[in-house]
Formats: sequence, structure tokens, C-alpha cells
Amino acid sequence: MLQEIEILGIVVFALSGIAEAQRKRMDLVGCYAVAFMTAFGGGTLRDLLLDRTPLFWVEHQEYAILVLVLTVLALLFPAFTRIPERWLVLPDALGLGLFSVAGAAYAQAAGTSLFVAAIMGVITGVFGGVIRDVVCNEIPYVFRNTHWYATCAFLGCLLYLVLDAAGVAAAIALPLAVAGITLLRLAALRYNCRLPGGEV
Amino acid sequence: MLQEIEILGIVVFALSGIAEAQRKRMDLVGCYAVAFMTAFGGGTLRDLLLDRTPLFWVEHQEYAILVLVLTVLALLFPAFTRIPERWLVLPDALGLGLFSVAGAAYAQAAGTSLFVAAIMGVITGVFGGVIRDVVCNEIPYVFRNTHWYATCAFLGCLLYLVLDAAGVAAAIALPLAVAGITLLRLAALRYNCRLPGGEV
Amino acid sequence: MLQEIEILGIVVFALSGIAEAQRKRMDLVGCYAVAFMTAFGGGTLRDLLLDRTPLFWVEHQEYAILVLVLTVLALLFPAFTRIPERWLVLPDALGLGLFSVAGAAYAQAAGTSLFVAAIMGVITGVFGGVIRDVVCNEIPYVFRNTHWYATCAFLGCLLYLVLDAAGVAAAIALPLAVAGITLLRLAALRYNCRLPGGEV
Repeated sequence: MLQEIEILGIVVFALSGIAEAQRKRMDLVGCYAVAFMTAFGGGTLRDLLLDRTPLFWVEHQEYAILVLVLTVLALLFPAFTRIPERWLVLPDALGLGLFSVAGAAYAQAAGTSLFVAAIMGVITGVFGGVIRDVVCNEIPYVFRNTHWYATCAFLGCLLYLVLDAAGVAAAIALPLAVAGITLLRLAALRYNCRLPGGEV
Repeated sequence: MLQEIEILGIVVFALSGIAEAQRKRMDLVGCYAVAFMTAFGGGTLRDLLLDRTPLFWVEHQEYAILVLVLTVLALLFPAFTRIPERWLVLPDALGLGLFSVAGAAYAQAAGTSLFVAAIMGVITGVFGGVIRDVVCNEIPYVFRNTHWYATCAFLGCLLYLVLDAAGVAAAIALPLAVAGITLLRLAALRYNCRLPGGEV
Repeated sequence: MLQEIEILGIVVFALSGIAEAQRKRMDLVGCYAVAFMTAFGGGTLRDLLLDRTPLFWVEHQEYAILVLVLTVLALLFPAFTRIPERWLVLPDALGLGLFSVAGAAYAQAAGTSLFVAAIMGVITGVFGGVIRDVVCNEIPYVFRNTHWYATCAFLGCLLYLVLDAAGVAAAIALPLAVAGITLLRLAALRYNCRLPGGEV
């Protein structure tokens, strides 16, 4: 079940990379590279920072091939990246939840302190999109005055880490935290929750 | 004493990140992320390049929490990042000196050659600001035709490395190099020292 | 012989970095930093991703010094970076071939699967230029709708990996793949081969 959601997360993140690359008039190589960095950038940065090795996409070439297939399909059938944005909201929120909580769990397993583990979770969930925007020559979307995004990931990672420290089994704490991030993100969109700073 | 200066360096570098992020209308998450990357980016890149592990801010979560507190304070009290620029000149020059010399010393301890150790020192002192500017969609300030900055770090690191190779005790060579970088930077500002290239 | 070509590749990549940095009005520090990242960025990223250590330019300080000498020469004698672009086409194609195939061979030696090894080859050959463009605040040239570039590297790396898997000796497979990338790149320029996507 977890792996299916992870793959769904990769697909959604890759699609957001392809869409942004196409907006910048990139060709197949550019779309693939941006999709790749969006889907794998957060986890890769986390693994470099924690010195975990080998990287997950180095070990599992099927992930990199999946993103290539997606990119080719998106260029053959442009409708593919013109999916209405609201269809992507739920998978994106799910992907954010799963990537972030998994990142926090990996960091914790590597022995980091609670605050740093939560930061690593946020990096895992969010930095693919940051790299996408930097490479596409935009100020990262997630740093601007938008609805809660990194914030949901941070709070959900904290929830997981506190539950875990309180002795709650991973089989309960993990899905609870993923669901928490997903629901908080959907609520932030619906109720227009924004952080202070950046008001125009 | 050294640790106090290091913390002062982190504070100054973080403030410069927050100020730049605010100029780009980023919210709390964006300001924190940019402050974090400005303060820790140089040392992190050095440690990745040297394969030193664990990273200093992964081991000391209080540094990451300090930057978060600073960011929240800066958003609550905007005057905080409107400190007159000339008040920041000395702490920034000190931070540059300390970060750079510490970076060169770590590189040397990892067994690198003299020139590479000096480069690692410069990366430690300067790359936080480079990452800040790239993420904020600007050409890195330190690469443009400005007063000596990376140059001071490079010369000071060389001074430390040569003194060390000549058998001078670290307790003398380290503060001498830090003071050298700080004073050279202040002199460069005062006497308008610029490198060739980039003239308009 | 291989080392001579590698050094030629470093020189060509560094020159392209200096030229771009000068276009952005950077000073000596900026030109050196961009030249450095263009020449060593791809190999450095590959080594970080594969956890290979120490980095090649950390072990061989003469490479970093060579790029510094080049940068100083380019600022003293501006004609140096105004070399007609067509003189650089062959060395650049050769550098791409050599960097990429070497990268794929290193990845394979580290035990990665075939597709990932080819990706690592492309990263080695191409990412120096990507970093150059990101730091210079441009959308990476190689991601835009240009003549085949990364594509040549990818196909050549696959050729090497397939030949190697078929039991062909490295002394034959390596130069064949380097020549294949070089010739394919020259042909792509001559016959105007472009990938789909990014049409204006």
C-alpha cells in the first residue's frame, strides 16, 4: 500500500515538473531533467545530508525509467499535463504527506535529534519543488506567500516524531502523520490559511 | 570565545538571508529557508565535498532552532532586519573570517592539499551567500564587481595554511588569519579595492 | 592520451564558463567560480550521488590551479574568450564524449544498473553547464530546444554499457563510445537534429 502511494507521489511530482518545464519551452531532455529533479530532488538532498547510501533511485532504476516514460507520454499527448489542477490537489497532498513522513522517519533512524528530523522531513517533501523552480528560473513557489505547504509537512513530521517518542507503534504513527499532513493541506487550501510575511 | 564568534557569524548571515527573502516578499517558510541556507549552506557544501559526517547543524539542532527564532523575531519586529547596514559590516567581516579559516582548517585536517584547503575555506565563508542569491533569483552578489570579499577569505586562508606549514601553533595562526581577513575586508571597503573584470 | 583529452575538456568547459560570466559582468572571483563549477560541477555531482571519495579535484589541486590560470589569462587577454565559436565545437564535443563515458564507467564500477549508469554519464557531461546557467540566472541552455546534446551523451553511454555487457574489452568499448558521442554531436549540429518539445 505504502509503495503504491509513493509511486503516486513520484508521478504527481514528476507531472508538476513536466508542466513547469513545458511552460518554459523546454524540449524532451529539459522536461525529463526537471521532472526527475522534482520527483527525486528532495529525497536525494536528504540522503546526501544524512550520508545515506546508495540513493533510492540509484538502487531502483525503475523509478527513473518511470519518469522517462511519463515525460515521453506527456510530450506525445499534451492533454496529459493539462489535467485540471484540482484533480492533482489530492495526490499532491498525499505525496507531500508520504514523502515528508518517510523523510522524517529515515532521519530519525539515522539518529538525528527531533527538530532536525522534522526539518529533514520537510526537505524531503518540499525541496524537489524548490529545485524545479530554481532551475526554471523562478523564485520557489513554496517560499512565497501561499497556502500552508511546508508548514503542514513540518507539523505532521512533528506529530509522527512525538507519537514515536511516546511509544506509539510505527504502524499507527506513520499513517496518522501522513493523513494529518494531507488533511491539513486540504484544509489550508479550503480555508485560505497563509503564514505571516510576504503580504503584497 | 571562538564559539561565540561563530554564533555571531550565524546570526549575521541568517539576518542577511531574511532581509533578502523579505525583499522578495517571501513568507515565514521562505524567510526561514533562505536564512537557513545562507547561514549553513557554505559549511554544508564543504562537508559534502570533504565527505565529513555528520553535518554540524545535524548534530547541533540548537543552531537550526536559533535561526528559526531569529526569523520569527524578524517577522514580528520588522525593525530587526532594517538595522543600518553599517552596523552589520564588522560582524559580517568577522563571520567571513571565522567561517573561512575554520573551513580551511577542517579541509586541511581531512588531508587536502594547500590550494584546495584554501578553496574549501572560501567556499565555507562565501557559498551561503551564493545559495541565498541563486534561490532569490539574483546573480550572486559576491561574483559581481564588488569590493574584495572572497579574495580576503582566500588570502587569509592561505596565511593560516602557510603559518601552519611553517610550524606556527594553531592558537596563534588561527586568530591571526581571522583577524587578517576581517581587517582586509574592512580596508577593502574603506579604500574601495575591487578586482579586475566586470567593469561597467 | 586519455588524460590529455580530459584536460582539453576541462579547458573548453572552463572557457565556456568564463565567457558566460563575463557576459554577466562578473569580476575575477565570479569568472573563476563559474569556470570552476562548469568544469568540475558534473563530475562533482556524480561523485556525491555515488558517494565516491575523495573528489577528483580535491585530490588533484593542479586542475583547480589550471582553471585559475585560465581565468587570469582570459581577463588579461580578452581575445582569449572571444575565440570564434566554431573553433570550440570539436573540443566541446570531445569533452562531452570523454566526460560522459568516464562518468558512466565510474557509475558502473560502483555497481549501478545500466539505465542509472547512463544517467550518471549524462550528469557528468552535462551538469557543469546546467550549474553554470543556473548561477548566471539563465534557464539551462541544454534543456531548451537546441540541437542534440544530452541525447548524444545518453546514447553513447548506452553504447559503452552494452558493449561492455557483451564482453567487449574496455580498450575498445571506451574510445568507440567517446567517438560515437563526438560524431553524433557534430552530426546533430550539421543536420539540425532537435528533440520534440519546446517548439516556439
